[in-house]
Amino acid sequence: MEEFVKIVEVSPRDGLQNEKEMIPTAVKIDFINQLSNTGLSVIEATSFVSPKWIPQLADHLEVYTKINKNPAVQYPVLIFNNQGLENAIQVGVKDIAVFTTPSEAFCRRNANCTVEESLQRIQTLATTALENRIRVRGYISCVLGCPFEGEISVDKVCDVADKLIDLGCDEISLGDTIGVGTPGTVEILLKTMQKNISREKIAVHFHDTYGQALANIYAALQNGIRIIDSSVAGIGGCPYAKGATGNVATEDVLYLLNGLKFRTDVDLDKVISSGRFISNYLQRENRSKVSLALMGKNND
Amino acid sequence: MEEFVKIVEVSPRDGLQNEKEMIPTAVKIDFINQLSNTGLSVIEATSFVSPKWIPQLADHLEVYTKINKNPAVQYPVLIFNNQGLENAIQVGVKDIAVFTTPSEAFCRRNANCTVEESLQRIQTLATTALENRIRVRGYISCVLGCPFEGEISVDKVCDVADKLIDLGCDEISLGDTIGVGTPGTVEILLKTMQKNISREKIAVHFHDTYGQALANIYAALQNGIRIIDSSVAGIGGCPYAKGATGNVATEDVLYLLNGLKFRTDVDLDKVISSGRFISNYLQRENRSKVSLALMGKNND
Repeated sequence: MEEFVKIVEVSPRDGLQNEKEMIPTAVKIDFINQLSNTGLSVIEATSFVSPKWIPQLADHLEVYTKINKNPAVQYPVLIFNNQGLENAIQVGVKDIAVFTTPSEAFCRRNANCTVEESLQRIQTLATTALENRIRVRGYISCVLGCPFEGEISVDKVCDVADKLIDLGCDEISLGDTIGVGTPGTVEILLKTMQKNISREKIAVHFHDTYGQALANIYAALQNGIRIIDSSVAGIGGCPYAKGATGNVATEDVLYLLNGLKFRTDVDLDKVISSGRFISNYLQRENRSKVSLALMGKNND
Repeated sequence: MEEFVKIVEVSPRDGLQNEKEMIPTAVKIDFINQLSNTGLSVIEATSFVSPKWIPQLADHLEVYTKINKNPAVQYPVLIFNNQGLENAIQVGVKDIAVFTTPSEAFCRRNANCTVEESLQRIQTLATTALENRIRVRGYISCVLGCPFEGEISVDKVCDVADKLIDLGCDEISLGDTIGVGTPGTVEILLKTMQKNISREKIAVHFHDTYGQALANIYAALQNGIRIIDSSVAGIGGCPYAKGATGNVATEDVLYLLNGLKFRTDVDLDKVISSGRFISNYLQRENRSKVSLALMGKNND
């Protein structure tokens, strides 16, 4: 029997949040509705965050309430503070994601607090969320390296992960935010983490900045991981430079998984179509090689 | 102790051969001379082929004779017929590469003969080469799929490989010409082939058309392979469409190998520099993600 791998599609939030030109709410809704019909079971819809911090997601309430919610799909939203969580509860959000990192420097720059303080914030958020029967996913960024601190110790990452589990997170997403990991470091991290946390609770969120994302995902699969974050057309993920890439493309992950005979229940053609829709809209090069290869083929 | 992985740099031949604009011989020589100082131990310099077939490599004699030959580097040239081999012998070539495929359709289109006939040609070439103490490398293309025939049976690939070894090839390079393989198919092929051929004789030549090249290389490494073909800046390799990629970038392979603690003796910075030189000259997007990421970083 084919083993199931869950894809967590992060494009509507992680992919769009750094776009400078405001994207019309209707386009975001259309995009999410398209993704909802691909077979994806988790689509991170937006972030309930102050427009001061992420102007592009200022329409999060409207996006969340107006998308056609497929009952087979979870639509987590990223939450940073109590206000965001209150708003999320009001509109019936069932899944949230919270964010921390083992890197003090990254935490200070991104969340303006210490790692310890960020965990305290998460504790408050998770307590309220769980009281409201909301599922909590914990993102840990910079797990294989930090743009400010360089190397990050495996023990620190695992310590943060253990704490997130203790605080009530039912899934930990390990982010290689700057894409510096290789399969060897991935393996060490995952083996160490699985001493305390079962693999069903661990997701990987790899960036392709150095071209290593699919090799790292393959290493993660070999180490028992069955939850993978990705973004159609590879949109988002703070690439350094023109042409540099961030998030790994969902299409390319699906191609890998199909080749390895994993079951995803996701329709690759429909995902390719959603990826082309959003990269056309953004007028950005499509960063899925599978999408580009098949486009060439269809034109032959 | 760190295990050694040999990189076979194919950019001067495989990377340049499909360029429509004629590249001045001096640029090719400069490019190869740069590569010769990176620590690479094998650089496929050109093809001794009729200008009728590959106009871009019409200057092969001049290129081969005028490059500064680093005694620590092998400079194989691709050979298709007796005339090419005679010329190669004349100018003191020490390493040649020959080409075949298990796909009848691909063989007909590319070499205008049957697979059996191509093996007969190779037999003639290899016999003469070996008499002249010239080492022979055998390329097998379409090992994980053919643009015309689709799936290619593992047994057929292994049969061709066995025959090439029998004919005197001391290394077999397995080409996933259209980049359709995934680590599962790579593993099956390599495990089967190693029943008859020792791993020291097997190289992998993977294309990144579907984004799978590094994952496939990682799978090959796990299956004992220690020879990898690649091309700086990812140049060449018949990409299907604008933005689609062919050869895997040497820079990205080196980053993977460095991360996995393999020894290559190759200087990544110098390779990046050669890759930038040639992609600037060709006015093509640099397809090494490592090169792009570090360029962005240096600009920060």
